Amino acid sequence: MAEQIKDPGIGEKFNARSGRVMNKDGSFNVRQAGFDFRRLHLFQFLIRMSWANFFLVLLIGFAFINLLFAGIYLMLGESALKVSGEMDPIAPFWRAFFFSLHTLTTVGYGNFYPSGYASNALSGVEAMIGLLGFAVATGLVYGRFSRPTAKMIYSKHAIIAPYKDHNALMLRVANFRDSLMMEVQADITFTYVVQVGDEYIRKYYLLPLERNTVLYLPLTWTMVHPITDKSPLFGKTKEELKDMQIEIMVKLKGFDEGFGEHVHSRNSYMIDEVVWGAKFLPSFHVDDDGATILDFDKVGAYEKAILNKELAHIDHVPALT
Amino acid sequence: MAEQIKDPGIGEKFNARSGRVMNKDGSFNVRQAGFDFRRLHLFQFLIRMSWANFFLVLLIGFAFINLLFAGIYLMLGESALKVSGEMDPIAPFWRAFFFSLHTLTTVGYGNFYPSGYASNALSGVEAMIGLLGFAVATGLVYGRFSRPTAKMIYSKHAIIAPYKDHNALMLRVANFRDSLMMEVQADITFTYVVQVGDEYIRKYYLLPLERNTVLYLPLTWTMVHPITDKSPLFGKTKEELKDMQIEIMVKLKGFDEGFGEHVHSRNSYMIDEVVWGAKFLPSFHVDDDGATILDFDKVGAYEKAILNKELAHIDHVPALT
Amino acid sequence: MAEQIKDPGIGEKFNARSGRVMNKDGSFNVRQAGFDFRRLHLFQFLIRMSWANFFLVLLIGFAFINLLFAGIYLMLGESALKVSGEMDPIAPFWRAFFFSLHTLTTVGYGNFYPSGYASNALSGVEAMIGLLGFAVATGLVYGRFSRPTAKMIYSKHAIIAPYKDHNALMLRVANFRDSLMMEVQADITFTYVVQVGDEYIRKYYLLPLERNTVLYLPLTWTMVHPITDKSPLFGKTKEELKDMQIEIMVKLKGFDEGFGEHVHSRNSYMIDEVVWGAKFLPSFHVDDDGATILDFDKVGAYEKAILNKELAHIDHVPALT
Amino acid sequence: MAEQIKDPGIGEKFNARSGRVMNKDGSFNVRQAGFDFRRLHLFQFLIRMSWANFFLVLLIGFAFINLLFAGIYLMLGESALKVSGEMDPIAPFWRAFFFSLHTLTTVGYGNFYPSGYASNALSGVEAMIGLLGFAVATGLVYGRFSRPTAKMIYSKHAIIAPYKDHNALMLRVANFRDSLMMEVQADITFTYVVQVGDEYIRKYYLLPLERNTVLYLPLTWTMVHPITDKSPLFGKTKEELKDMQIEIMVKLKGFDEGFGEHVHSRNSYMIDEVVWGAKFLPSFHVDDDGATILDFDKVGAYEKAILNKELAHIDHVPALT
Repeated sequence: MAEQIKDPGIGEKFNARSGRVMNKDGSFNVRQAGFDFRRLHLFQFLIRMSWANFFLVLLIGFAFINLLFAGIYLMLGESALKVSGEMDPIAPFWRAFFFSLHTLTTVGYGNFYPSGYASNALSGVEAMIGLLGFAVATGLVYGRFSRPTAKMIYSKHAIIAPYKDHNALMLRVANFRDSLMMEVQADITFTYVVQVGDEYIRKYYLLPLERNTVLYLPLTWTMVHPITDKSPLFGKTKEELKDMQIEIMVKLKGFDEGFGEHVHSRNSYMIDEVVWGAKFLPSFHVDDDGATILDFDKVGAYEKAILNKELAHIDHVPALT
Repeated sequence: MAEQIKDPGIGEKFNARSGRVMNKDGSFNVRQAGFDFRRLHLFQFLIRMSWANFFLVLLIGFAFINLLFAGIYLMLGESALKVSGEMDPIAPFWRAFFFSLHTLTTVGYGNFYPSGYASNALSGVEAMIGLLGFAVATGLVYGRFSRPTAKMIYSKHAIIAPYKDHNALMLRVANFRDSLMMEVQADITFTYVVQVGDEYIRKYYLLPLERNTVLYLPLTWTMVHPITDKSPLFGKTKEELKDMQIEIMVKLKGFDEGFGEHVHSRNSYMIDEVVWGAKFLPSFHVDDDGATILDFDKVGAYEKAILNKELAHIDHVPALT
Repeated sequence: MAEQIKDPGIGEKFNARSGRVMNKDGSFNVRQAGFDFRRLHLFQFLIRMSWANFFLVLLIGFAFINLLFAGIYLMLGESALKVSGEMDPIAPFWRAFFFSLHTLTTVGYGNFYPSGYASNALSGVEAMIGLLGFAVATGLVYGRFSRPTAKMIYSKHAIIAPYKDHNALMLRVANFRDSLMMEVQADITFTYVVQVGDEYIRKYYLLPLERNTVLYLPLTWTMVHPITDKSPLFGKTKEELKDMQIEIMVKLKGFDEGFGEHVHSRNSYMIDEVVWGAKFLPSFHVDDDGATILDFDKVGAYEKAILNKELAHIDHVPALT
Repeated sequence: MAEQIKDPGIGEKFNARSGRVMNKDGSFNVRQAGFDFRRLHLFQFLIRMSWANFFLVLLIGFAFINLLFAGIYLMLGESALKVSGEMDPIAPFWRAFFFSLHTLTTVGYGNFYPSGYASNALSGVEAMIGLLGFAVATGLVYGRFSRPTAKMIYSKHAIIAPYKDHNALMLRVANFRDSLMMEVQADITFTYVVQVGDEYIRKYYLLPLERNTVLYLPLTWTMVHPITDKSPLFGKTKEELKDMQIEIMVKLKGFDEGFGEHVHSRNSYMIDEVVWGAKFLPSFHVDDDGATILDFDKVGAYEKAILNKELAHIDHVPALT
């Protein structure tokens, strides 16, 4: 039987009709009241931003530290930086700036070099800051580069398909990445809204699946929720479900052999992404040399199908309390 | 039924009345008899200290190694270090010190350079030590920076609230971080003290919750322990619980999507952090564009509420053996 | 009873007789329709290729970046790069190329050094690119080097052996690596093909094992699937199984103490890798000082053995629906 | 009931009486027949060796690469390496060697610098090798430094203690590290030998514990195996157990908060490490300010105690088949 979940961390009572709970990218439609810097963990912030923004942050940080040190070297006077060989025809500030660059990156050509106590000591500090700072920068570059993520292809629609002598809600999924996904686990949460006076109450059910785990996922996996009289979908017409503002939230977790780590993926379907009376078409075929060929464009392919009559269509609301 | 735990690794028999078992920061109120250096794992020591102390340790270590090598270069005599270009007007010791700096950080300007066998060999060793030493230092900087930690907002008080036809102990929690927490698991341990002769015996119970796990935590989660006649809290007044020196210890574990790792959080409530007869107020609302707005200041917000009468108030002590 | 698995992510209905499902190296015999660059995650691509190819990619990338920067320095004119000391008798392009090398690797001898705004700025950018680029390169080198992998020795054949009063399917496995494998878990999937009209249907069963987990694996582990009347192998002759195009897929997961991580291993047996009527020979012995000596060459060693009669040989097909 | 384990990966049939199965350091008393280089995974080899050996390997590798490159530079002739400033009074080979040092570590002072095509190209390759090679070296240094390990204090003896109306086998353990251990799981395997003709058969039982997991381990944990008539220890005298060559193998797994990782620990007790008729003494006390003080020296402290009579001492061997 579909397990009802009270207060599953997503909210139960609302002052108004809320929109989509989970966005198509798997994020939740939740914001905070007022911005608070302390919520940002710097590491998380830098590892999740886009590559373009990340490099911009690096460049700005790099420029800022160089400008800062250049300013200090300049303040130490002309004698703080010496030039080996002939004098470079650039302004003193830029000489200090480029010397700072050589030091921060530890490239240290030596055409500019520090002279006197203050300048020597400062360049030592800068080299140390450079080493530690680039440790964080390069750690982040590699961390971002090697960050395990899932790239699952979901069927565009959830379908209501004939299944044995009744019907079932079905989704299909495939791993787009060129690596084996193993020990894949699925959780499907079904939610809808009931208005009680001024309040809107959200109900949540964990939909039982025929199988909620597969050992390997080299091809596709069709998740099947049989719509028996224990299902919150039982005996409901499409119009009724639309009124109930339903949403079907999918959570997948699997071990990606390429990363050697577990990855997660989420998706959600609203009523206009559910097709009534359909069945999935094959998305792969065997070619002449016996290998199986998967076509990602067909993961969501379906054709019309005639649904089975449900056992008790009208008088079964008690499951939805 | 609440499971009693004998000797759960926290101690059972005490020679005296002990204070709080778990501190508010989740650490245990346990010390060791006598200090023992071998208990410190250097990595753990360096990764858990404050950033200020950590940089102090780095700086001291960096200075120490430089001083050491500077001393040795100095002992090798004047001819061991050469100066390219004009002589820097600094004392020989500092010339050696700054040369050591250039070598350890591998910046190597070349205004100072080694000459002769000993000095050349030593600077090779120093460069190698610099590379390996900075590997540990930079590894620690990044390790500290990317270390997964939880930042949960707990309700300031645990409350005794009306629940169905009886009452329940409730806590509320939210994830303060700007990242999704998934697959959150809670364990609540209830402990109290019984005096037997000279000894004080601590009893431990694992409190059963309505749900001890949630799939997602974008908003708040109210943990609910129903006070049925199977609960060690059943039939007890606030005064009785105060005498029993109770403590409610919470342990949360979840998968933080921002870190891509599991994180842990702990908290504990003493009797003066428990409110009798209250219910939690909503901590979020839906705004005009349908998004849910969470207010962290209201995670612990409650109002007074009238408790249900308990079924058997007086004659139910046997559960507490 | 052997659990039948519908649509286990490996495909159920095929348009033709497919070849081996899982190859001997544990990969699946699945390809994609058309090549798609987006399927490749760059990190996965670089971490899974051979060492030879990896170093080739590094060398090409390194050369390309150097050529690019050398070209730009050259375009900046003769005055952009200065030479300390006597002029090196090499062509201007190569001077620019080697200067770029010194900068990208941050070795920065200073025999060539930048002069003027453009050249100085560019070399700063190049040093930064070098630091970030080598961060990815060196991260990948270490990531590949420390990547946890299993190296299991499987018995060359699966055997049908007498077992108690009936028979059993047995496999033997040992950990070839010089590190302790712990908490090893096995899943054995049995699959065969049924022709229905034009279609070929693949059936899958998870074979129950006497034990599907061991705490430690310092020696060998013999996985035992008893062929009771609940087994899909029950009552089948070798010829029948050959017609059914059977395949036995093994999945192992364990904690490798040397890596401090979980590792996975897969293998598959077709009908010609199954021996009828055999039992495994010992693969280890105790030597004079009481130590156990394991011989990896004998992990698959067996001798002929007489099978037990099966209880109901002929009339038991219903299990295979 | 104690679960008997057939062939648990540790070996069942032996040609002779074997010694200890598990050594006190948790390793198994197993060797391989003949040495095989392929068993060594280089990463595992380098991460598990002692620090002294590891630095020796680094030094030898570092010296070897330098000697190799020095030889090649020397073969390129006098003109391949130039000297900025006055000539260093060292032999040409050592000039090449120290130049190689400057290049491999990327310190690049520039007092020696390459000249001509071959020398410039070679130094570029060497700098690249240096960067990649030090990536592995420094990765290993940090990997070794941050490698999660457990340091558990086990009671020196397992004891047979009175327990309720019967007796129990007890062990005590504490976490020596200055970090919290959480979610600790214990598995205790009991093994003994039976001689059958020429062969020695090892029997294995997983001993059921009162609790095989604790949430936290800030103090000590006493593992308790009640010796009921389901236990393989039931009705046995110390002499009988000695004849049976028993061994008690303990495996602990916990989450170390300092490392943020799971750690493992193993130990084993032979018959002479089992004390008959004892009970553990307290290993901690409460001091004046209410804190609990743990004394690691007392983790194994016990005093004599009188055992309970067992229910059926003589006629209960069938459990041991």
